[in-house]
Amino acid sequence: MSKNKGLFIVFEGPDRSGKTTQINLLAEALNKKRIKFLITREPGGCPLSEKIRDLLLDPKNNISPMAELLLYEAARAQHTAEKILPALKRGEVVISDRFFLATLAYQGYGRKIDLSIVRKLNSVAALGLKPDLTFLFLMPDREFEKRDRKKDGLNPDRIEREKADFRKKVNSAYRKLALTEKNIISIDATLKVEKINEFILKKLKLK
Amino acid sequence: MSKNKGLFIVFEGPDRSGKTTQINLLAEALNKKRIKFLITREPGGCPLSEKIRDLLLDPKNNISPMAELLLYEAARAQHTAEKILPALKRGEVVISDRFFLATLAYQGYGRKIDLSIVRKLNSVAALGLKPDLTFLFLMPDREFEKRDRKKDGLNPDRIEREKADFRKKVNSAYRKLALTEKNIISIDATLKVEKINEFILKKLKLK
Repeated sequence: MSKNKGLFIVFEGPDRSGKTTQINLLAEALNKKRIKFLITREPGGCPLSEKIRDLLLDPKNNISPMAELLLYEAARAQHTAEKILPALKRGEVVISDRFFLATLAYQGYGRKIDLSIVRKLNSVAALGLKPDLTFLFLMPDREFEKRDRKKDGLNPDRIEREKADFRKKVNSAYRKLALTEKNIISIDATLKVEKINEFILKKLKLK
Repeated sequence: MSKNKGLFIVFEGPDRSGKTTQINLLAEALNKKRIKFLITREPGGCPLSEKIRDLLLDPKNNISPMAELLLYEAARAQHTAEKILPALKRGEVVISDRFFLATLAYQGYGRKIDLSIVRKLNSVAALGLKPDLTFLFLMPDREFEKRDRKKDGLNPDRIEREKADFRKKVNSAYRKLALTEKNIISIDATLKVEKINEFILKKLKLK
């Protein structure tokens, strides 16, 4: 990262791929080394973006594919300006649960919006910021379907209410993105938690 | 308009330039001729976009320039998909209080976001739709300042709370846009209401 002293690490992948578990384990390791860090998530991470998140996930809202994409990008723009960039300027490690790849997978491959449009909006919303490193959690469709069926069905949000078919399309989109996007480190999400944690710590030279 | 049977007319210009008065007079004329029409406004015009409008105008919200632009474009995308395009397909005249020029004036010239980015987002959010005709109400800065001072100061929204300097910059931006944008019919907002109404009706061949 040229303009910032910090390090911007993103965790990406479909729901139930183990991102949150690994973010928490990474936080433990950073704590032990007394390295300052900030954990955040998309959509959300600051007051305006959490309000936009509420709009996006409320099952009562009728949202067209393009309005959905633009709302995710608006949430990203505020989150980047208000939270991520200032932390990076302070020299901190910023860990975000999702960033560019999520809009490419869900709104690009999922909602069929032209990928070049999604890429353009991603870049505009992030104000030129790019992740230094993205850990991308991947699963075969069969494993995804197994985990997808296990999820608790209480109060599903607007995106969780999408047909299983849509969610499967998003899962396979992440595998495609692993091949086309830059600075991606793919992770087999079916490996044991400790194995994945060890791999991540080694990649970040924390072990 | 190639794909739609209807006619898409936009009224643009700074606050207090007389747009609403003229929209209402045009509505009267269309009523008399029994021509079906829809009057709508930006940001807003449908449930999701009205919620986005509330976010944009709430003085308590901290909104970065890029997040502001993306929220306006999200509201536009939903409004276009849910309300404007269906009405045009039914063959109606759609009259919108603001569209492309407002984001160019406020977020482009006002917030200093690159105009090429604003134009790109305008086009993406409008799903390819372009106004058939835009009536643009223009005022000299002195006239704008006079009207600006007269406005009632009760509960100003987030945009109205901007410094007088910002609002003046937006007013002069509209004059620049009159020279650079397509399908614009400029109107001297200092003319008498009846004169302007007559001019608009003639342009639309309603008189």
